[in-house]
Amino acid sequence: MPLTASLAQLGEDAQRASYVLATAPTAQKNEALTRLADTLEAQATAILAANRLDVEAAEARGMSAALLDRLTLTDARVQALAADTRQVAALPDPVGTLLDDRVLPNGLRLQKRRVALGVLGVIYEARPNVTIDVAALGLKAGSAVLLRGSADTLHTNRVLVSCLRTALEQAGLPAGAVQFIDDPDRALVTQLLRLDRYVDLIIPRGGAKLHQLCKEQSLIPVITGGIGICHMFVDASADLEQAVDLIENAKVQRPSVCNALDTALLHTAIAPALLPALAARLAPQGVTFKADPASLQLLAQAGHDADAASLYDYDQEWLSLTLGLRVVDSLDQAIDHIRQHSTQHSDSILTRSDAHAERFVREVDSAAVYVNASTRFTDGSQFGLGAEVAVSTQKLHARGPMGLEELTTYKWVGLGDGHVRG
Amino acid sequence: MPLTASLAQLGEDAQRASYVLATAPTAQKNEALTRLADTLEAQATAILAANRLDVEAAEARGMSAALLDRLTLTDARVQALAADTRQVAALPDPVGTLLDDRVLPNGLRLQKRRVALGVLGVIYEARPNVTIDVAALGLKAGSAVLLRGSADTLHTNRVLVSCLRTALEQAGLPAGAVQFIDDPDRALVTQLLRLDRYVDLIIPRGGAKLHQLCKEQSLIPVITGGIGICHMFVDASADLEQAVDLIENAKVQRPSVCNALDTALLHTAIAPALLPALAARLAPQGVTFKADPASLQLLAQAGHDADAASLYDYDQEWLSLTLGLRVVDSLDQAIDHIRQHSTQHSDSILTRSDAHAERFVREVDSAAVYVNASTRFTDGSQFGLGAEVAVSTQKLHARGPMGLEELTTYKWVGLGDGHVRG
Repeated sequence: MPLTASLAQLGEDAQRASYVLATAPTAQKNEALTRLADTLEAQATAILAANRLDVEAAEARGMSAALLDRLTLTDARVQALAADTRQVAALPDPVGTLLDDRVLPNGLRLQKRRVALGVLGVIYEARPNVTIDVAALGLKAGSAVLLRGSADTLHTNRVLVSCLRTALEQAGLPAGAVQFIDDPDRALVTQLLRLDRYVDLIIPRGGAKLHQLCKEQSLIPVITGGIGICHMFVDASADLEQAVDLIENAKVQRPSVCNALDTALLHTAIAPALLPALAARLAPQGVTFKADPASLQLLAQAGHDADAASLYDYDQEWLSLTLGLRVVDSLDQAIDHIRQHSTQHSDSILTRSDAHAERFVREVDSAAVYVNASTRFTDGSQFGLGAEVAVSTQKLHARGPMGLEELTTYKWVGLGDGHVRG
Repeated sequence: MPLTASLAQLGEDAQRASYVLATAPTAQKNEALTRLADTLEAQATAILAANRLDVEAAEARGMSAALLDRLTLTDARVQALAADTRQVAALPDPVGTLLDDRVLPNGLRLQKRRVALGVLGVIYEARPNVTIDVAALGLKAGSAVLLRGSADTLHTNRVLVSCLRTALEQAGLPAGAVQFIDDPDRALVTQLLRLDRYVDLIIPRGGAKLHQLCKEQSLIPVITGGIGICHMFVDASADLEQAVDLIENAKVQRPSVCNALDTALLHTAIAPALLPALAARLAPQGVTFKADPASLQLLAQAGHDADAASLYDYDQEWLSLTLGLRVVDSLDQAIDHIRQHSTQHSDSILTRSDAHAERFVREVDSAAVYVNASTRFTDGSQFGLGAEVAVSTQKLHARGPMGLEELTTYKWVGLGDGHVRG
């Protein structure tokens, strides 16, 4: 099979199906989603059997426990996927909304209408739930999807894609709206990134290397994100007990996610009181510290261990119970540190000064900035967007959680009666 | 001078200045714009003298008359630049607008604030007015600019950039907010496209080759656009006289621009009556036709000359008085033709059928779609956006005319009182 030609064929098929999806009525899209939920439940045994093959092969190759956990489906997880799909059906349809509607001085009626994007290319790791999540959100947003999952998930994905296509056909929609690259050849990722004739948007869901590959190779606009080096600055005026609570929540509640805290910046006036209380709260929960000389000394005085931080440590997304610490002289120094080390995901200031809060909010250029709140809130469902396909850390098109609206575009519609330009 | 290092320095300087611009008060930005207008008027003699050097050198190299016209400044054109700059000062400031403001169920106040983009990289041809236009719009939108003009405009641009920097300083803003690559080496364009550490957005203003280079090489998001292969479909039910008027306007009023008409698709039921009337109106104005066999025959029967169109002709942006013609059987065939050949800029249907109008509007996936109106309206000032920096034909971030709002992004602001995620 000539791979390039067949990939282009997938793209062309997805584009043709996208024309139908773009104008499909809401009820028909929702029916496909409901049918999908039913099919997932009905096919649970087949899905779990296929997943078992993937999991066994991954175990034999020595995949880490954390990755195995992401790969593994259980009956409860299949039920959850079906429930999520029904929730997407219940969300409002973003397509067709009028964003603007006015009559120009010359009498031409000008509308700005929200419309479907077209074809979404999604490149992701060994997480079978992503197959259902992005296809369901894409469908609701009126777009076709071209999926490139990990080779580790091939058996599971084949069954899930078959469920998706069955549900589309049952609802009278083209099965071609879900395309799946059923070939583990890595060269196909690069080829997908050059399929700008058929694909309108690339969403990479994976690590920094995948994002860099997409930035380097893609002819198609890419939404990068999902990598969060997140900061909290504890200002001199912060409430000490609240600071301990917030740092604990941001670091410990779910350390493996992108909006978890990576570095706490402590004002020099509050550090001597805060650090011992913080270490006393966090160390028993398994948190270890990468500390600059000043915080290292304060911790030592209080009888707590910590490693000396290298500058390199401030550029780590820990995804673990490690916490970077640095004592700073001022709000300015905190902002400078964040400008140098943040991935522009989520950063927070803890302060009782309105002026400092407002300066932080204005000057820290991140997708989400917080005042006296945990960084853990950056999330589509927390923000009330209903669901999210990714968290964007770039500034174009979508910033922060990408929900259904962020999976659409708009067009201008000019309604005239023989209007010519003078 | 090690060019790469110096380019990175320009980027770093622009980014540092962008931090100041992003939070500068509206009045200060407007003062800089007003000072710029004054400076342009005061420096008109120096600007014109520098421009004379560029024009003479270009003439000696044999530059075409059309390009020379774009390169040439006159006293009136400098006055117009000053007037445009004052108009930008009068536009509302897009920065700081609240796009959303609500209290989540947990009590966290969540705002979506419109904010500056940061640093705009602009790559453009020998049009000195672009230097002032994009810098003025960027400044109003709170962003710094890193400009890469054509080598043909080097003398003029040096003086214009000096005017820009003077005006910024007079208003107490950092001169570094306008950076200019004062070196004709083409390799610097590629290097600029890889400066993702400092530059947030690339706007290419030039032909298809420049856009393709940017898509291929850029690590930075690019807004492509400005290339319009535009269609009008004259449906069977269209008003015949109105059709002649609209095609004339779209083709003849200003043939050299991107929203001018390239191909007219004529329903087979109206073509026999329309083509003779159209040729009689357009031929005397110098319009020549590239016609498919059916329209060629109809024109010949009416005694009009035309060239036979090749398929290749339907992929031309004519920018001239050439018009492609094709007779089609149906709305479906017209939509298929547009899907194959349109650059998704501006396409129009002429019809008296509401159902056909709505199908065309929904199914033609272009930045602007029109019903019974000329394609020539796709333009920031026509749309009431005040000014435009480019016309985007891509679907992400901005579609169609890009005004001040499209030169911004947003951030999420979470205002809490010790809020942690449960």
